[in-house]
Amino acid sequence: MFETLELGRKLKRKEFNASVLELRAALLELQFQLEDADFPVIIIVSGVEGAGKGSVVHRINEWMDPRLIETHAFWDHSDEEEQRPYLWRFWRVLPAHGRIGIFFGSWYTQPILKAASGAITEAQLNLEMQRIEDMERMLTNDGALIVKLWFHLPLDVARERLQADKMQELTRIELRENSDEDFAREYENLVRISEIAIRATDTGNSPWHLIEATDDNYRELSTGEIIEQRLRTRLAQAPAPNGNIAPVRLTNGGQPTVLDSVPLDSQLDSDEYKEQLEHYQKRLDALAWQARREQLACVAVFEGWDAAGKGSAIRRVTQSIDPRLYHLLQYAAPTDEEASHHYLWRFWRQLGRDGKFTLFDRSWYGRVLVERVEGFASDDQWQRAYAEINRFEEQLVDHGSVVLKFWLHISQEEQLARFELREQTPHKQHKITEEDWRNRDKWHDYELAVHDMVAHTSTTSAPWTLVAGNNKRFARIEILKRFCDAIESRLG
Amino acid sequence: MFETLELGRKLKRKEFNASVLELRAALLELQFQLEDADFPVIIIVSGVEGAGKGSVVHRINEWMDPRLIETHAFWDHSDEEEQRPYLWRFWRVLPAHGRIGIFFGSWYTQPILKAASGAITEAQLNLEMQRIEDMERMLTNDGALIVKLWFHLPLDVARERLQADKMQELTRIELRENSDEDFAREYENLVRISEIAIRATDTGNSPWHLIEATDDNYRELSTGEIIEQRLRTRLAQAPAPNGNIAPVRLTNGGQPTVLDSVPLDSQLDSDEYKEQLEHYQKRLDALAWQARREQLACVAVFEGWDAAGKGSAIRRVTQSIDPRLYHLLQYAAPTDEEASHHYLWRFWRQLGRDGKFTLFDRSWYGRVLVERVEGFASDDQWQRAYAEINRFEEQLVDHGSVVLKFWLHISQEEQLARFELREQTPHKQHKITEEDWRNRDKWHDYELAVHDMVAHTSTTSAPWTLVAGNNKRFARIEILKRFCDAIESRLG
Repeated sequence: MFETLELGRKLKRKEFNASVLELRAALLELQFQLEDADFPVIIIVSGVEGAGKGSVVHRINEWMDPRLIETHAFWDHSDEEEQRPYLWRFWRVLPAHGRIGIFFGSWYTQPILKAASGAITEAQLNLEMQRIEDMERMLTNDGALIVKLWFHLPLDVARERLQADKMQELTRIELRENSDEDFAREYENLVRISEIAIRATDTGNSPWHLIEATDDNYRELSTGEIIEQRLRTRLAQAPAPNGNIAPVRLTNGGQPTVLDSVPLDSQLDSDEYKEQLEHYQKRLDALAWQARREQLACVAVFEGWDAAGKGSAIRRVTQSIDPRLYHLLQYAAPTDEEASHHYLWRFWRQLGRDGKFTLFDRSWYGRVLVERVEGFASDDQWQRAYAEINRFEEQLVDHGSVVLKFWLHISQEEQLARFELREQTPHKQHKITEEDWRNRDKWHDYELAVHDMVAHTSTTSAPWTLVAGNNKRFARIEILKRFCDAIESRLG
Repeated sequence: MFETLELGRKLKRKEFNASVLELRAALLELQFQLEDADFPVIIIVSGVEGAGKGSVVHRINEWMDPRLIETHAFWDHSDEEEQRPYLWRFWRVLPAHGRIGIFFGSWYTQPILKAASGAITEAQLNLEMQRIEDMERMLTNDGALIVKLWFHLPLDVARERLQADKMQELTRIELRENSDEDFAREYENLVRISEIAIRATDTGNSPWHLIEATDDNYRELSTGEIIEQRLRTRLAQAPAPNGNIAPVRLTNGGQPTVLDSVPLDSQLDSDEYKEQLEHYQKRLDALAWQARREQLACVAVFEGWDAAGKGSAIRRVTQSIDPRLYHLLQYAAPTDEEASHHYLWRFWRQLGRDGKFTLFDRSWYGRVLVERVEGFASDDQWQRAYAEINRFEEQLVDHGSVVLKFWLHISQEEQLARFELREQTPHKQHKITEEDWRNRDKWHDYELAVHDMVAHTSTTSAPWTLVAGNNKRFARIEILKRFCDAIESRLG
């Protein structure tokens, strides 16, 4: 693969200068257009050591308007990063629409270095690359332009560069004391691993650009031209349809849904409730402290019908846990910063550190529920969201977090009774709005959306719990019990 | 001071229950009103160990809607916090308008513990308290409601509680092995230090509420009543005037301003420019790497007239520095998240870590420039901003950062010439708008605002550099030179 990058391509200073002026003007003009576009640009700068990646990043900043570029090196890993899933460090700095993020070192760096050192097998490397491909596809599906650059050097040039004094100061790599043969072996191993990584992630959506890096002028001009071309092509594409598509009324021919199997007649009498409430709240309190000591994180999602008792059920959970140990988040309309990122960004940004419970009152499932039913997301968008959400939760589980998901179910009749009660109770009137009645008319649509959601996203490691909610006491205890069991099974 | 808190006040379960129902309804109703208000609530929970602070926080979350409350413990210091000024950890989690932040452990904790252990003197403690008072006044001036709660226990109760098993598990304090006399001495010392801290910060704007904590019922009901009362009083206040006040045209009777002393005829010829540019850019490049090695942070602010050459001067700086070592931020209209915080929040949130340069293209000085002149800030607001800004920059300097501030000055004639040139040059036309011409009409107002700004905020540790900008070459070299000198003087 890399032989084609050892052809000795170069560019004379004069040719370089002649081309650069035009290129710069073009890049600036495109960047100016980008500012108003509804997508971000991610430039990934990778390749062998000594290939001049720093210099390339410098050039891009010089040629374009650096006020709209953010460069991230990811070289100072912080404890806040280590205490969250691996990709959190990238999510937190993903550029907003109209902006360019240069990722100098990226999601590729760690897996490649680990595989090269033998810390993970090639099979594991391939799995990691599969995940990266998923991540990149998710971002490009959302409109992002990802430009992936790989800079290559032939062995002898690499050795020469790394031994030069200047390079050492810049990259602060210690002079390699080992013999030429050792260096060659190490280098070729790294190149071989890189090739595996590149092949596995060289997709139509976000292809790799392989650049011969021996000659500075050639390397930098090629880079500029690639960025110019990719940006021009992307800007020429029609803007993504902006949601608010007339939704299709859902139908399943009257077949039962997964909700029909929820035993809505489950009951718990008042005495038993009091006893169990005390029991489980005490247990959860102790478990939350133990989770903190063992640095176990927990992510819990609460979804359900209007008036299903979501709020009061959550309150029974938060009452049990010391407020220093949980963070409760409520999701409604996105802020403007959130709206200019991928829809999962607003959830990633709030993920708690190890040892903490993060409770989501409504969540990323809005994508396949309200956004689907109301037509705020296109068919494409909500359909691919199942896989995106599964990937997201997989990362939480892989990081070691407990993931809990509750759907609070009630019957249509029970909802009606509660709505009417709310309208009659002065201090509850504000809890019932026109919109609640409108949503109620779409009961059947939501029912089918919930069915599909559960079918697609109830996984072994992050299963849905469908909670029978007609009897509030039963529902609350059910949730507390699940919480305790899930945490307990993971603690030492 | 604390004797009044050892009266043995208590409340029977029955009285407690009778009062709580009403209190909860009142708190919920007030919180409901707060949601639409234009200010945040900060509740500071402090006091001696064993006083049941955790339980109080739990209660507040139970009595009110926890979805609008964020509880912060500040017990896990992260390296990202350590690498920024002390208050950054609080700024990053300040609640937005309409929300309640409970600070369990707060800006008080560290200074008090340090003084109690003898790590800082009482004089230093008083200085720290002065800074905290500044911070709190700044927030309350901006509308925030700060409720400061101090929970006290008599010595014997404290000892008993800390020795109880349950308490140890909750607070995870190791059983104090020392003798009763040692405990008493340590405890009394802490109480004495706390008294100093409380006295120094017990202001009209944000008074301390001292609560006797021996009896759980009394402690919790009192807390709830204090919050209820403070919240009710604050909500009853008229909303803050919302800026957009007709601005007063400024006048100084034709006296010279600080800008008149800038030697605008300073020149640099093209050859000398090239030579010096290369010299200083190389130097700055090396200094930035050295700053990273020595973990020195640098904060630089760029302000100036329209068309003064701010953008191109910044570019000469960013060209010099590896993009991994700086972060360039441009400030225009705030996002909605930013608009619902104190005006300094959007700058605090972007502060870089040690070893990094944070460059601000326009900055917090907008408050005393455009916001003053255009009447977006009230007289009160921009007048107190001088002190607020000085306090902010003092913290940067105290943390060890280099602070640089540039005002790019040009003459009125030079600006006119550049505006006209821009209008005639096709690819520069977008850089000149109606607004630029309007601002130009207010030249005199801006001149006086700049004068006042420099007079009030050019401090020894964070001085302004007024850059003669009629000759762009001269200005760029001047800035680079200042940059290099300031960094160099701070490196080993």
